[in-house]
Amino acid sequence: MSSYGVSLLSGGLDSSTTTAHARRRVDHLTALTFHYGQIHAKEVSFARHVAESLGVGHKILNISFLGDVAWYSALTNPDRFPMPSGRADEEIGFGVPITYVPLRNTIFLSLAAALLESETLHAIETQNEDPSAMEAVVYLAPNAVDYSGYPDCRAEFFESAVETINLGSKLATEYGILVRVETPIIDKTKADIVRMALELDVPLERTWSCYRGGDRPCGECDSCVLRARGFAEAGVADPGLA
Amino acid sequence: MSSYGVSLLSGGLDSSTTTAHARRRVDHLTALTFHYGQIHAKEVSFARHVAESLGVGHKILNISFLGDVAWYSALTNPDRFPMPSGRADEEIGFGVPITYVPLRNTIFLSLAAALLESETLHAIETQNEDPSAMEAVVYLAPNAVDYSGYPDCRAEFFESAVETINLGSKLATEYGILVRVETPIIDKTKADIVRMALELDVPLERTWSCYRGGDRPCGECDSCVLRARGFAEAGVADPGLA
Repeated sequence: MSSYGVSLLSGGLDSSTTTAHARRRVDHLTALTFHYGQIHAKEVSFARHVAESLGVGHKILNISFLGDVAWYSALTNPDRFPMPSGRADEEIGFGVPITYVPLRNTIFLSLAAALLESETLHAIETQNEDPSAMEAVVYLAPNAVDYSGYPDCRAEFFESAVETINLGSKLATEYGILVRVETPIIDKTKADIVRMALELDVPLERTWSCYRGGDRPCGECDSCVLRARGFAEAGVADPGLA
Repeated sequence: MSSYGVSLLSGGLDSSTTTAHARRRVDHLTALTFHYGQIHAKEVSFARHVAESLGVGHKILNISFLGDVAWYSALTNPDRFPMPSGRADEEIGFGVPITYVPLRNTIFLSLAAALLESETLHAIETQNEDPSAMEAVVYLAPNAVDYSGYPDCRAEFFESAVETINLGSKLATEYGILVRVETPIIDKTKADIVRMALELDVPLERTWSCYRGGDRPCGECDSCVLRARGFAEAGVADPGLA
């Protein structure tokens, strides 16, 4: 079997761990990083470092147009919708927060799958690879434990999305290759993810989880709070804070 | 009921007719035009004219990054994959042609739905509109008669896609508003579409269907051939050729 894969890599703890996991399972893996807005600019350089450190191909895509369509969100339009911080611990993960980006995972997954389909069609039609001995997998890093408030982080969403992709792709309809979507950390706690990252040699000191783009993680946004909780529960110091 | 809608408008015959149809059904309609590659640049100015002529809001988005992900296509990378022309009439519409753009409709639909969700969430959360008296509709112009070769132009693809969107949206999970996807010309012949366009006062002389970007339609690409056949069968001269 010859396997092709695309793994979304934001440069955070979750997607870096997922990409390291994918690296061990796929022959031809490309890490795909989306760059949008200003908040996450720092993540891009961290993503580059993680991809290099893992030895996988890396593609960076500027999709700043996202703020024009999925505009009703604190992540795409921080000036209009201030980022929440200082929320009580029990508030995080309940309700759909203003950091929800309309249909983000639908958009991200379809872009990742389009790249994967392009790579795979190319291998079949111009490199003469045998479609019956190929597989194609998208790796994503949603997490339903800490991010239960996001509708597009649930397993049932991904099950439906993969069906849609396979109904709409030439890869499935012409060559019988059904794209799979793997979400290896969807049911893991942040502490589990920290342990998994350590086992997979993820360069944790160069992962960035903060929603804000300062010199150091703010320590107050939902993402910082969840990360700190994960390291604490795993009994490990966060090297990203060193 | 207060209805919100987004209609994808490329500036061609099909999407202009679909947008004119949507215009009569939706209170708050935005036409959304994607600009990518160079081939279709002319369509954008035609799309602008059509939107003005129909009196609908218009948003133009540069998504030229599409050629980086969905790169295996004659539409996104014309230099690498020459555009087919001079195909025999019976070849058009069979098999998946090289003008297939990997997962294009999945990507386009998710972007359109993200804009629609943003507009609708804004109306609910900041304009205090009543979610129980609102509807949200995406209008798309796929056609399964002439474009049977494209897997993402089939009704079963759109049925699955709308399910995915509603599983992944805050609009559905928090406010109970299920986005609908309307594809009013999916089962129509090109002749039917020409007749529908005439009834709806679509400015046909300013619609552009050619896959190439010359001064005049090439008359040879699949899209030109299909359009010519439609006007001939409807017994109408194509004002776009005047």
